[in-house]
Amino acid sequence: MKLKVQILDVDTGGVHKILLNPVEITHLAMFAGERVLLEYQKEETVAIADSTSLVEPGNVGILNQVQRELKVKEGDFVEVSSDVKPTSIKAIRKKMDGLTLTADEIEAIVGDLVTGRLSDIDIAAFLVSEQIRGLSLEETVHLTRAIAEEGEQMDFGENVFDKHSIGGVPGNKVSLVIVPIVAAAGLLIPKTSSRAITSPSGTADTMEVLAEVEFSVDELQKIMKTAKASIVWGGALNLAPADDLFIQIEHPLQIDPRPQMIASIMAKKLSTGIQYMVLDIPTGEGCKVTTMEEARKLSHDFITVGNELGIAVHCAMTYGSQPVGHAIGPALEAKEALETLMGGGPTSLIEKSTGLAGILLEMGGLATRGAGRKLAKEILASGKALKKMREIIRAQNGKPDVTPQEIPIGTCTYDLLAPTDGYVATLHNRALVRIARAAGTPKILGAGLYLHAKVGSRVKEGDPVLTIYAETEGKLSDAIDVAKNLMPFTVEGMLLLTLTDTEQF
Amino acid sequence: MKLKVQILDVDTGGVHKILLNPVEITHLAMFAGERVLLEYQKEETVAIADSTSLVEPGNVGILNQVQRELKVKEGDFVEVSSDVKPTSIKAIRKKMDGLTLTADEIEAIVGDLVTGRLSDIDIAAFLVSEQIRGLSLEETVHLTRAIAEEGEQMDFGENVFDKHSIGGVPGNKVSLVIVPIVAAAGLLIPKTSSRAITSPSGTADTMEVLAEVEFSVDELQKIMKTAKASIVWGGALNLAPADDLFIQIEHPLQIDPRPQMIASIMAKKLSTGIQYMVLDIPTGEGCKVTTMEEARKLSHDFITVGNELGIAVHCAMTYGSQPVGHAIGPALEAKEALETLMGGGPTSLIEKSTGLAGILLEMGGLATRGAGRKLAKEILASGKALKKMREIIRAQNGKPDVTPQEIPIGTCTYDLLAPTDGYVATLHNRALVRIARAAGTPKILGAGLYLHAKVGSRVKEGDPVLTIYAETEGKLSDAIDVAKNLMPFTVEGMLLLTLTDTEQF
Repeated sequence: MKLKVQILDVDTGGVHKILLNPVEITHLAMFAGERVLLEYQKEETVAIADSTSLVEPGNVGILNQVQRELKVKEGDFVEVSSDVKPTSIKAIRKKMDGLTLTADEIEAIVGDLVTGRLSDIDIAAFLVSEQIRGLSLEETVHLTRAIAEEGEQMDFGENVFDKHSIGGVPGNKVSLVIVPIVAAAGLLIPKTSSRAITSPSGTADTMEVLAEVEFSVDELQKIMKTAKASIVWGGALNLAPADDLFIQIEHPLQIDPRPQMIASIMAKKLSTGIQYMVLDIPTGEGCKVTTMEEARKLSHDFITVGNELGIAVHCAMTYGSQPVGHAIGPALEAKEALETLMGGGPTSLIEKSTGLAGILLEMGGLATRGAGRKLAKEILASGKALKKMREIIRAQNGKPDVTPQEIPIGTCTYDLLAPTDGYVATLHNRALVRIARAAGTPKILGAGLYLHAKVGSRVKEGDPVLTIYAETEGKLSDAIDVAKNLMPFTVEGMLLLTLTDTEQF
Repeated sequence: MKLKVQILDVDTGGVHKILLNPVEITHLAMFAGERVLLEYQKEETVAIADSTSLVEPGNVGILNQVQRELKVKEGDFVEVSSDVKPTSIKAIRKKMDGLTLTADEIEAIVGDLVTGRLSDIDIAAFLVSEQIRGLSLEETVHLTRAIAEEGEQMDFGENVFDKHSIGGVPGNKVSLVIVPIVAAAGLLIPKTSSRAITSPSGTADTMEVLAEVEFSVDELQKIMKTAKASIVWGGALNLAPADDLFIQIEHPLQIDPRPQMIASIMAKKLSTGIQYMVLDIPTGEGCKVTTMEEARKLSHDFITVGNELGIAVHCAMTYGSQPVGHAIGPALEAKEALETLMGGGPTSLIEKSTGLAGILLEMGGLATRGAGRKLAKEILASGKALKKMREIIRAQNGKPDVTPQEIPIGTCTYDLLAPTDGYVATLHNRALVRIARAAGTPKILGAGLYLHAKVGSRVKEGDPVLTIYAETEGKLSDAIDVAKNLMPFTVEGMLLLTLTDTEQF
């Protein structure tokens, strides 16, 4: 039936939703909370219809997400029907039953996902089934292609290089060092990166301290023509809208099925036209991958899927049980990366960055096997990487001559002190992440942590082991509370816990 | 933070939802579409918060489902916080990983479900994990207890009997015959039944043609005192609110994990204080259970779980590959049941009803083993069951002396004819269900089907095999379309399909 649009300015955060008068709900032979198909000119989408007397019969109350999808305005007429039968429900059930899906079935799932035909429940059912039953590498390739095909495609006209990390280690600002090194050597590297979901700072958040990161595909093409490199937020490019929808369900479920991780990463590489990539797999206690065996298996899968898709993948397992460098949080990390490009910076950041950059230089034929790291270090030391970074910042509308001192850092600080003399035995990634998040990262750019000592450092009783930075006393106090609860580090010989009060349990 | 209530008359069909101004979303350090905890006096619930400029800062827009839960009115102040961390998420993850859950973990899941702390995504994750990983019988007992404990508890002060069917067969109006037989023999049988979700008529829908079915626990106690028996809708009694929430997710996923089915049924029996029950397991092609082996396994599980809970369960596998009796749809089925109680009725309905009633009579010590059916038939033939049914109808505010002729049936009809001479070879349950639903069941009480022939009946070309009943020509035409597509019966020797046009595929 045709209903008249009444725009309602309500943001559901992603869920497609409309409001109908109970009379129309009855006409459609449906119940409140069920889904309807909406058609307007060439656009169509599926939405959940709630029932309300606030919308007159003959009208349909359109909330923001649906308005954007259909591109309708007040007073337009849309076709509303209750005939919503996603064909992919059967495929999801098949995976639940442990059977192998065909390319067509996987395409149907991804297609129905993107057109909104699948509910959150359906998507959760698929992801949980995938988590338990797994996907074969062939299915993973199909999934990767299906996700890539739903998004924008880019072509830079020549060989394109990329660095990617599967994530999970705080303070991992290496992309801000690797990209300019690789680009300074003459390789094309259009780095698209993510914003933090659960971490203190994604590469896109860190880069945003120095330059803009939200660009369209056309704008990115221009940046690449000027600077031959970029560090932008992939989310703005619409490279893999299906992946964003999967992540919206994976995140609250706190699952990240391996095949989904591989497809998510490789689909975006496929869309960006990458031919050569180095993949950082942080491994160890507190990482996504905890053992070398697991890392080896994952590498095998990435390389195999890459081969099928025409992408040469070089996997590098890196030590991931403590943060990279000393800084955690957007501004603190941007500052540390800039210092490193200027000739300073911590050893762990320099070694990891040049190691990974070196692999790309070797893949690009600019260094013989094993000589890449040395070349990367030379480029870093020569100041060419810094010069390239300033070009990238300029191309992305930042201040090219920015200095580390200019970067604003939170002014409310608190030092966590060593309780005893000794060596730092452990730094707990997850605890550090939670303290940094409590301090306000990634939304508050100046919030974060600075580690004065790393694992193995000798500290004296009363020495600061780490400093918390926040922009308000309230957030600082939140972060201190979290820190006192979680014990983010241990010093050999310190008492781990003393208890006198049952309330402490 | 405390926010002022602004009631918004919107019905979401079950989802707990509120609206907040973007300013408050930011204050709560959350995103639109995430969950918040709402507290008002002693009530608390969790809801999804969408963002809108339509609600002023300082206010909270409360939609119907949340209003009912919190019992707030316009202008009240509720506490809103974003600290929603269900402890049961870990337990769900554990089941996903294939591990066994403890009683405490299962209680946490059911508790968080009922308080709204679990999202649809979380519930789907639990159900899909259960579908794939299974639950042990011990876990199933914990689940049953947890579901029962969240609901109302009843106690009738003496031994209580019950009949239940796992469902799946259209036209299964046997409860309307069994309950009065059993009660006429002197046994207490407070039958609570369900409304149709996917079938043409649930027992509660069928009974509603004759009497009211929505009563509170107190009202049911009164009915039981008067009539010693009841046939009411379980949904109104709040016996197992957790089960209703599980079903809301199982239904769109089209899954019904076995342990969930057992817990769902047994929890309501536990809440109703049942000690003895007969369980009808329709078995065969087109049923929930297709093989005798599967039926045996399910019986074993029901009996074991029942033993743990102090409920003696007698399972009866029945032939389920075609409808019971001739009538399908609320009014048509109520009419057929009444005719049967008055001494008429089809053989399949009489045999199945007296068979199951007989088991209860044996369990109650009123007949020796094997003699129950005979006693049940005697009670039916004596008119005592009819008298008891009229008492039940009176106690449930119906018209006690109702006659079959008075029951209004849809006046728009269409006959499906035998295309050839022969014996009816098959009647397809699922096709019959879809035709009846298209005709308007269960909402339209007078809609439905009447089967003139059953499997094995001899028909002549042009004989009506079934009649479709609807209350409007539009609905009748919908049902005819479905019937022509689905071919609900076959007559030996008829051509199954002839094709001349590619559009028919």
